[in-house]
Amino acid sequence: MLRGLSGAGLGKLENDEHLIELAGRYGFQAVDVDAKGLIERHGADGARELLKKNNVVIGSIGLPVEWRSTDEAFRQGIVKLAQAAEAAAALGCTSCCTYILPATDLKAAHFMTLATRRLRICAQILGGYGIRLGLEFVGPHHLRTAWKNPFIWTMQETLDWIDAIGEPNVGLLFDAYHWYTNELTIADIEALRADQIVHVHINDAADLPVQDVLDNGRLYPGEGVIDLAGFLRALNGIGYKGAVTQEILSAAAPTDSPESLAERSKAGFDKVYKAAGL
Amino acid sequence: MLRGLSGAGLGKLENDEHLIELAGRYGFQAVDVDAKGLIERHGADGARELLKKNNVVIGSIGLPVEWRSTDEAFRQGIVKLAQAAEAAAALGCTSCCTYILPATDLKAAHFMTLATRRLRICAQILGGYGIRLGLEFVGPHHLRTAWKNPFIWTMQETLDWIDAIGEPNVGLLFDAYHWYTNELTIADIEALRADQIVHVHINDAADLPVQDVLDNGRLYPGEGVIDLAGFLRALNGIGYKGAVTQEILSAAAPTDSPESLAERSKAGFDKVYKAAGL
Amino acid sequence: MLRGLSGAGLGKLENDEHLIELAGRYGFQAVDVDAKGLIERHGADGARELLKKNNVVIGSIGLPVEWRSTDEAFRQGIVKLAQAAEAAAALGCTSCCTYILPATDLKAAHFMTLATRRLRICAQILGGYGIRLGLEFVGPHHLRTAWKNPFIWTMQETLDWIDAIGEPNVGLLFDAYHWYTNELTIADIEALRADQIVHVHINDAADLPVQDVLDNGRLYPGEGVIDLAGFLRALNGIGYKGAVTQEILSAAAPTDSPESLAERSKAGFDKVYKAAGL
Amino acid sequence: MLRGLSGAGLGKLENDEHLIELAGRYGFQAVDVDAKGLIERHGADGARELLKKNNVVIGSIGLPVEWRSTDEAFRQGIVKLAQAAEAAAALGCTSCCTYILPATDLKAAHFMTLATRRLRICAQILGGYGIRLGLEFVGPHHLRTAWKNPFIWTMQETLDWIDAIGEPNVGLLFDAYHWYTNELTIADIEALRADQIVHVHINDAADLPVQDVLDNGRLYPGEGVIDLAGFLRALNGIGYKGAVTQEILSAAAPTDSPESLAERSKAGFDKVYKAAGL
Repeated sequence: MLRGLSGAGLGKLENDEHLIELAGRYGFQAVDVDAKGLIERHGADGARELLKKNNVVIGSIGLPVEWRSTDEAFRQGIVKLAQAAEAAAALGCTSCCTYILPATDLKAAHFMTLATRRLRICAQILGGYGIRLGLEFVGPHHLRTAWKNPFIWTMQETLDWIDAIGEPNVGLLFDAYHWYTNELTIADIEALRADQIVHVHINDAADLPVQDVLDNGRLYPGEGVIDLAGFLRALNGIGYKGAVTQEILSAAAPTDSPESLAERSKAGFDKVYKAAGL
Repeated sequence: MLRGLSGAGLGKLENDEHLIELAGRYGFQAVDVDAKGLIERHGADGARELLKKNNVVIGSIGLPVEWRSTDEAFRQGIVKLAQAAEAAAALGCTSCCTYILPATDLKAAHFMTLATRRLRICAQILGGYGIRLGLEFVGPHHLRTAWKNPFIWTMQETLDWIDAIGEPNVGLLFDAYHWYTNELTIADIEALRADQIVHVHINDAADLPVQDVLDNGRLYPGEGVIDLAGFLRALNGIGYKGAVTQEILSAAAPTDSPESLAERSKAGFDKVYKAAGL
Repeated sequence: MLRGLSGAGLGKLENDEHLIELAGRYGFQAVDVDAKGLIERHGADGARELLKKNNVVIGSIGLPVEWRSTDEAFRQGIVKLAQAAEAAAALGCTSCCTYILPATDLKAAHFMTLATRRLRICAQILGGYGIRLGLEFVGPHHLRTAWKNPFIWTMQETLDWIDAIGEPNVGLLFDAYHWYTNELTIADIEALRADQIVHVHINDAADLPVQDVLDNGRLYPGEGVIDLAGFLRALNGIGYKGAVTQEILSAAAPTDSPESLAERSKAGFDKVYKAAGL
Repeated sequence: MLRGLSGAGLGKLENDEHLIELAGRYGFQAVDVDAKGLIERHGADGARELLKKNNVVIGSIGLPVEWRSTDEAFRQGIVKLAQAAEAAAALGCTSCCTYILPATDLKAAHFMTLATRRLRICAQILGGYGIRLGLEFVGPHHLRTAWKNPFIWTMQETLDWIDAIGEPNVGLLFDAYHWYTNELTIADIEALRADQIVHVHINDAADLPVQDVLDNGRLYPGEGVIDLAGFLRALNGIGYKGAVTQEILSAAAPTDSPESLAERSKAGFDKVYKAAGL
């Protein structure tokens, strides 16, 4: 498993280059960045060189498509998706992720038909570039009622949705926070096959009743109450070999320097990896 | 378009043979029957002969699969579906239909993922036999709240679901009652392509406020307030050539003899076809 | 059915604007042009205005993707396809076509797997914009042995391929020349459903033994031996309502002025439409 | 990885019960048997009990469908497939396999379209029961020209076909003999993901020039020249955990008793597993 960094949790980064440089300096092996932006600024060769020089690969890109509202909005993203996929593929990245809001203002069943079709189109386009699509279920309780109608938020629902989408290159973005807020167990991870997981997020939760845990109240790995040692051990046990990328969403951006936050992230990873025996 | 009869509305029929015989006698050209049962009782050649002798074809068979509850229940129907499809194909029938309840006790979005996958499997099996799958949206208002969570009941939602299922052989079962209770227009029919319609049901509605129209309060064609002349004219106008099959669901079974009910059905068809100029 | 013009057969056209103008002047209702180019030069509103002013719609765009060689070449076309589809959709065009060479230097079965997957991706992308993909089987005998291994060239093979691709928005580009060189009949057209046809090409063949008819030896409609009256009557009979677009491939470009060639094309259409009773 | 036995190589077995009993006695953990037959003779509970008593699971069932000839023949197998899948699922078996002949008397590209669609239908049906479909590429040179037209026989072609079929539950049946006769390497195995492999066959080859190796000239594991130690180590290395089932095809059935052949098989497995360090 590759230790990964994203911008979420590193404060006021200047740009993706800054993230890449910090990731390299603090022993991370993967970064979640905008592949297309990198190529625009450095060319494909330059971008590859930059990643290589810092000993990192791209863990995942984000899905640059609005699949949650109208067909018109969705269509406007298709060209962008193809361009993003082309760029990601050029830099050796094989995963692209999006998250599922657990509620919606639309009628839930109808929205599911629209979203199924749209994500199937996305999966096909990504598949044309050898890229997989990861879907992140989102567990925090407060979000389940943040819009009019409940949608889906459990791992099983998401696996069933992946079946409904029906493309071979769709899997989970598995986030420790959503694993925790869904009150899932080690056994739930062990019941997965590695190939069902496209990408992993890691972060920690405050010591609150689980139903009060806020989506943007995330802590650095090892600073909270999630059993991240068990989480990592189980993922490793089923043979997952991809990136485990830190994503710290918080109400207010951290004010420490990116440098010190990267150092703190490294300490967190060291702690939980050690506890996991990895 | 073929005039079709189903058992619904003909009272105490003895069996499908009785239906076939009445359909033939009263000038109907299609019947909705159990193809497999016919073959079991007559052999494939005998069943074909029986249909031919009465100048009818099979309009559609019903989908013999429980796709609305558990995976276990669904699986138990797969063999039955393959057998039913084999029988239907042997008798020249190319459509198989099911209806969509407009509400569900399950979580709506999750149920939609399960149902999408299950109906895709059904469509594939049917496709193996050259048979199309028709999905019937169900409009009466009282059913929209008859279970805990709203599901889907409009034509557009159903077309979007058909897109999500993503198989070329899935289309609408288009029922005049649901067209009416959804307050759809002639223009809504004219906006369809003929190939989007797998099967058509015809029946009429009592003169009540549309939101009070009951699913099992259906009338014979021409005895109610639905603009069936416009309905038929529009279907014919877009080039629909399949069966238009009567389906009269009522709270209490009609007590008249099947013979007299078939005669009454014929009169109804004559009236509305004439009004449609067909 | 819409009378359509393409650049093939109009000699030295200046550009698509020239084609649009001639089409309008000579009573054609559809043109096969590059939608993206039009929008780049006129803006979407300007392009729509130009089409409207000349009373034409776009019959079809070409598939701007190399799906016949390597995965790398294919991938390079995906962004272009998304852009082309976006442009076509913006101008109300709903079909995109490509042709199938009847032989290949690659191993035929393996190439079929690659091509199936690639065209499915194309169909999905196009489907995201409400556009259908038309596949043109190519009949002339000399092309069947022009590369090492036979591929496919009959209508039935192409329909079977469309089934294998398995997307609802794929159909035939039906060309009179390939219908003729495959020695198909009126009955073969009548056995199709209109929705199986995405686009139609019309042109005529020299009075030669059919196995000697050359792909680039095409004549203007009505100047050769193909039963174009029967062809058009049958297409109209099954309810086809799309464009019937002239495509005259010839070894040497015609030297007459585009204006006179458009006039000649109109005369050809007038003749065969009249013979068809349309 | 589970040591598996099939009937191929055990001489004149009385029935599947005999195979199960021998497998248990000689330390095998999986058997390739006819699940439906077992249930017909023992009931589902009895069959499960029989397997459990002998400490074996079912490695794979065969695909009981004729997908290589006509649509009619194919259709006749659909019901059988659903029944076979139901039986396999009832006994906990999750894989079903078929082999690909490397040549065909049909036109190769057209046959590929037919076979793609048929195997997609099979995959969907199997998927309804949680079963995967394994496709076995067949390497021996003499078979590549045994029918009129070359079809496919390499691993890469088969992986590309799996992509073309496009269902998530299709993968390889990976047979040591075909790996060898395709002159594939350890690195080729290491480049696979475990989830791309549905089932594995093991057997050995005579010391002949590879192009002279006959499909029905297979030897027991460890008695020939294939690097089975490397084969097994590589499969284990990528995380494959399914059955590795012996399949010895020979021109003449072995005349030794099934008992002694099972003992010989065990010795072969012991030898190559030990050499692999497993």
